[in-house]
Amino acid sequence: MALIVQKFGGSSVADAESIKRVAKRIVETKRAGNDVVVAVSAMGDTTDELLDLAHEVAPIPAPRELDMLLTAGERISMALLAMAIESQGHEARSFTGSQAGMITDAQHGSARIVDVTPKRVQTALEEGAIAIVAGFQGFNRGTGDITTLGRGGSDTTAVALAAALKADVCEIYTDVDGIFTADPRVVPRAHKIPRITSEEMLELAAAGAKVLYIRAVEYARRHGVTLHVRSSFNNNEGTIVYTPAGPGLDQNGAPVEEPVIAGVAADLSEAKITVVGVPDVPGKAAQIFTIVARSGANIDMIVQNVSAAVSGLTDISFTLPKSDAQAVLTALTNSKDEVGFERLQHDDQIAKLSLVGAGMRTNAGVSADLFTALFEAGINIEMISTSEIRISVVTRADTISDAVRAVHTAFGLDGETDAVVYAGTGR
Amino acid sequence: MALIVQKFGGSSVADAESIKRVAKRIVETKRAGNDVVVAVSAMGDTTDELLDLAHEVAPIPAPRELDMLLTAGERISMALLAMAIESQGHEARSFTGSQAGMITDAQHGSARIVDVTPKRVQTALEEGAIAIVAGFQGFNRGTGDITTLGRGGSDTTAVALAAALKADVCEIYTDVDGIFTADPRVVPRAHKIPRITSEEMLELAAAGAKVLYIRAVEYARRHGVTLHVRSSFNNNEGTIVYTPAGPGLDQNGAPVEEPVIAGVAADLSEAKITVVGVPDVPGKAAQIFTIVARSGANIDMIVQNVSAAVSGLTDISFTLPKSDAQAVLTALTNSKDEVGFERLQHDDQIAKLSLVGAGMRTNAGVSADLFTALFEAGINIEMISTSEIRISVVTRADTISDAVRAVHTAFGLDGETDAVVYAGTGR
Repeated sequence: MALIVQKFGGSSVADAESIKRVAKRIVETKRAGNDVVVAVSAMGDTTDELLDLAHEVAPIPAPRELDMLLTAGERISMALLAMAIESQGHEARSFTGSQAGMITDAQHGSARIVDVTPKRVQTALEEGAIAIVAGFQGFNRGTGDITTLGRGGSDTTAVALAAALKADVCEIYTDVDGIFTADPRVVPRAHKIPRITSEEMLELAAAGAKVLYIRAVEYARRHGVTLHVRSSFNNNEGTIVYTPAGPGLDQNGAPVEEPVIAGVAADLSEAKITVVGVPDVPGKAAQIFTIVARSGANIDMIVQNVSAAVSGLTDISFTLPKSDAQAVLTALTNSKDEVGFERLQHDDQIAKLSLVGAGMRTNAGVSADLFTALFEAGINIEMISTSEIRISVVTRADTISDAVRAVHTAFGLDGETDAVVYAGTGR
Repeated sequence: MALIVQKFGGSSVADAESIKRVAKRIVETKRAGNDVVVAVSAMGDTTDELLDLAHEVAPIPAPRELDMLLTAGERISMALLAMAIESQGHEARSFTGSQAGMITDAQHGSARIVDVTPKRVQTALEEGAIAIVAGFQGFNRGTGDITTLGRGGSDTTAVALAAALKADVCEIYTDVDGIFTADPRVVPRAHKIPRITSEEMLELAAAGAKVLYIRAVEYARRHGVTLHVRSSFNNNEGTIVYTPAGPGLDQNGAPVEEPVIAGVAADLSEAKITVVGVPDVPGKAAQIFTIVARSGANIDMIVQNVSAAVSGLTDISFTLPKSDAQAVLTALTNSKDEVGFERLQHDDQIAKLSLVGAGMRTNAGVSADLFTALFEAGINIEMISTSEIRISVVTRADTISDAVRAVHTAFGLDGETDAVVYAGTGR
């Protein structure tokens, strides 16, 4: 008998019909002889609707109360899901984050899990029941208050439960068939990746692949939880995200033949800011990024131009989420005289293409092949950054689809048939 | 400094504007130098909407999960109310039933309060915060599960908190100005009762006056909590419901001059069932009402006709909520041969008029005056029942308004001006 943790997102439980369908799937897993624990998000747009209400009564809602409010969302979905399962003949018990032992720090809105003590979940399983746990929410022991885990919190709940319960697998249900070598809406020949390491998945997620949240993958990696990303609309095998027990070994110690490249990701959510005419003296970059950090922005890539020796001035460019750009521009403008730069440039028509693969580590020619493919497709490269298993380049936004297709083909990722694209809404 | 518990029902917090208005009222009470604890219901129709959803996913929702689901309602309203108060410059903390120490038995859907341990509420008050408590909900220690208190549960939450915290007064906010001598929509000259004993209030509530729930009044009476029923739309004094410390004394030991009659109530929610042709032998009534009790119905009035000596048969009539009638008719029909009655009659066109007043106890002529008033108004009396401080009669439903007006006038209850009737929706 296996222990399976299943996570269903808001779009999978958007209305009564969807909830009954998900309940049926859970019951089938149970009837197949497995113990089942389910982490569930709030129904469809519930969280957004509650946020709207909050902003109607208070321009800046108190964080403790906002968490109290938002956690009503999963309370509704999990109770309905448990009822639907019971009406299909299986015992089910729903548990809030607090009841399921999701212990967090006190950071309302983006709490970190500090301990997982799922005693009541275990008792429910021992008594033959299916346990339904509210995703996204936790409990702080010090204050006795309810917390939320922030974006992608339900994925994290599922993975944390899987780790604490030593589940055989954590199934993440979504509206696509798994992780693809590229976005099938952009690259029709993109194919589903059967297996991918958590390290590669982390890089893909960081590079803009939106099927899994980085935080959940990190948690899975650290605790050796195997993820199975699959569609809630069919029974196809999806993508297994696993953590090798050692280099080149999977978690059972079996040797893993890693393809050089796992996939290509595109990210259109970033903007570029260039600080033009910065005095080329020590400490200026530190000064600029201290100002940027205080504005709360998350910086991604940074490029400092080679100093023009004559002028003694240099340019510093960086990318960041479009939503953070205005705050950073304001903060830097207010510090113009202090830093002594000439002017700021803002560019929100950029896109980032990333090539990810653990095989890259031992394969020196990947960068060269990437640049060649882009050059042959007539794509200009504006910025470059690399990690051990990822290369990212910034291009113009309107060339990104061509770029992804060219790279996908150049690295031999094209499948034999076109991928099926669902008319879904992403997550 | 006084400690005031305030209860706001669903219609008082139906939308963002109402919540801000209620928050303003609470803040004013706090600024006037009082400690304030608030019990709040779910917004407007939230509970009904959640019930509809439950029935969409499961014909007979599991009771534990139904309570989990419904308690999301107050979680939303209390968090929004706390945010609205904070945005008006006062600290507020919301607490679930569990966090506020509302300990109940494990009877999902109609749990009884067994203990109230509002430590976190007290701490919040000591720290200068306004405490917002979810009405209607509790927590069972044995199972660790969330429970709900059933109909009128938020009133009960407020009264139980007032008792546990030894509050000076428990203010029940509603959409009418207080308790009236009769329904102002029926009797324009009905006037607000300034003070009424909890005993009289109990009889009025049992007789169909819908402003307060019986259970909350009983709790207030048993614990000596003074209620103030008032409008959330103005600052008028409402009706004080108090519990005399002894006969004829108020809770401060001051003598109370009780008027003979406190008010007149009408109830159109009941039906009458008559079991015709019951053998007039000992034990038959017990047999019938055992069957009725097993069907879960709440019986109100019972009348057994004087036996017709010749036939050896008698008729037994009783009233009960219309919603219980079908179950009782089915149960009795199934036991027809066993009990040996001839047939059943069902009548849902009845109404009950009740006259309530503690002064009735020492005033023998009240019944006679009541029957005379009804006779003179041409109203036929079908059943009669009495308690120490109440007389109820059953009449035809279509004559009840005339009956209430006639009795109101006959007992000198008419005010000098017509009552203001709000275009409200009851509670």
